[in-house]
Amino acid sequence: MLTIAVSKGRIYEDALPLLAEAGITPIDDPLTCRKLILRTTRDDVQLVIIRATDVPTFVEYGAADMGIAGKDILLEHGAESLYEPLDLNIACCRLMTAAHKDAPPIAGRVRVATKYVKITQRYFAGLGIQAEIIKLYGSMELAPLVGLSDCIVDLVDTGNTLKANDLEPRDLIMNISSRLVVNKAAMKMKHQAIQTLLDQFEKTLAKRG
Amino acid sequence: MLTIAVSKGRIYEDALPLLAEAGITPIDDPLTCRKLILRTTRDDVQLVIIRATDVPTFVEYGAADMGIAGKDILLEHGAESLYEPLDLNIACCRLMTAAHKDAPPIAGRVRVATKYVKITQRYFAGLGIQAEIIKLYGSMELAPLVGLSDCIVDLVDTGNTLKANDLEPRDLIMNISSRLVVNKAAMKMKHQAIQTLLDQFEKTLAKRG
Ligand SMILES: O=P(O)(O)OC[C@H]1O[C@H](OP(=O)(O)OP(=O)(O)O)[C@H](O)[C@@H]1O
Ligand SMILES: O=P(O)(O)OC[C@H]1O[C@H](OP(=O)(O)OP(=O)(O)O)[C@H](O)[C@@H]1O
Repeated sequence: MLTIAVSKGRIYEDALPLLAEAGITPIDDPLTCRKLILRTTRDDVQLVIIRATDVPTFVEYGAADMGIAGKDILLEHGAESLYEPLDLNIACCRLMTAAHKDAPPIAGRVRVATKYVKITQRYFAGLGIQAEIIKLYGSMELAPLVGLSDCIVDLVDTGNTLKANDLEPRDLIMNISSRLVVNKAAMKMKHQAIQTLLDQFEKTLAKRG
Repeated sequence: MLTIAVSKGRIYEDALPLLAEAGITPIDDPLTCRKLILRTTRDDVQLVIIRATDVPTFVEYGAADMGIAGKDILLEHGAESLYEPLDLNIACCRLMTAAHKDAPPIAGRVRVATKYVKITQRYFAGLGIQAEIIKLYGSMELAPLVGLSDCIVDLVDTGNTLKANDLEPRDLIMNISSRLVVNKAAMKMKHQAIQTLLDQFEKTLAKRG
């Protein structure tokens, strides 16, 4: 049995067609059934649907053999203990700084609210900007509005979340996409099954160009 | 202006009647309008609706003058820098260990999945049980099902979440309720307004008995 960890939301949506090309279609719909473990059209494959932040943990400990997670989450988690064989090129977005549209440029000493503490620390250190980082778990866009921080570091896709809160994107930290990660022991023990899946994903990605 | 930080979900629901008794009723409904800052029927009071985990941070930094947060979140955050003047006795539940219904008693060396790392560490250390703690951010109940951990530490209310996953509650770690927390500087600077609110809450709580 192969267990694949996938997070709810955008990554799940974007992963479905990719999984389908490998013959893997969930039998239950997580939106309607509340189940967290989904059987699939392949008897030997199941999906576990979890928080994005938990995907590297499940794969690291071998509770899932493979997982699909954003590069943002992998960098923040520190995923040295995982193989990351494939950029799936799905759930693409940008990790950016953002500030109120009337706020001055980000410089000098700044307060930054983010859930990406490590990436943010590294980024501002690289620029020689002294940043006080305030760790949040959700709704970063609220922080500048209530004076919690001067700016935020968050994912930007359409930019609608920022705009709705009178914020604007400032600097690009990095482009983000979702990656396939594999547990190191599983890569040895279930090599055949995993390699076959990897080949199928690669073929689909090549077709997409 | 007084800003009160409240988390979505159960705490918000339970806080509404208490706030109403103090003349504070949100003008917008966060469920339908997606706004994170809610004006209220009192011109001098606004609510910010955020993740439970973020409430102590907002109050600590003074982005909110007061907040309503579960004792679980406060203990885990380490809220030495906040006043905690009132147990609101709402959103009551229990922080418990839980395991698969067929699993042996929790003893010896155990793997525990939880988002309450500090509380869990302290709890098992107190019992002399060697616990390897695996930090998760959501859906703890999944961990024993996929072999990630022997047990979990999570909030239990009706017990339905556990039962739906073939788990059962084991030991009570502590009873949990939501507390009012106040920023220390605000307590001085806005003493009159805050003290009046505290008195109103206390009166309501006394009536409830
Ligand atoms: O530029 P936009 O198209 O508005 O997208 C950006 C939003 O998407 C991300 O959140 P997501 O919806 O993934 O959920 P999260 O808040 O739980 O991270 C991100 O944190 C922003 O809030
Ligand atoms: O015993 P029950 O009545 O089933 O309640 C317990 C559930 O409630 C809590 O989650 P909550 O719904 O507060 O959301 P969370 O998962 O985001 O913590 C807790 O984490 C359990 O999942």
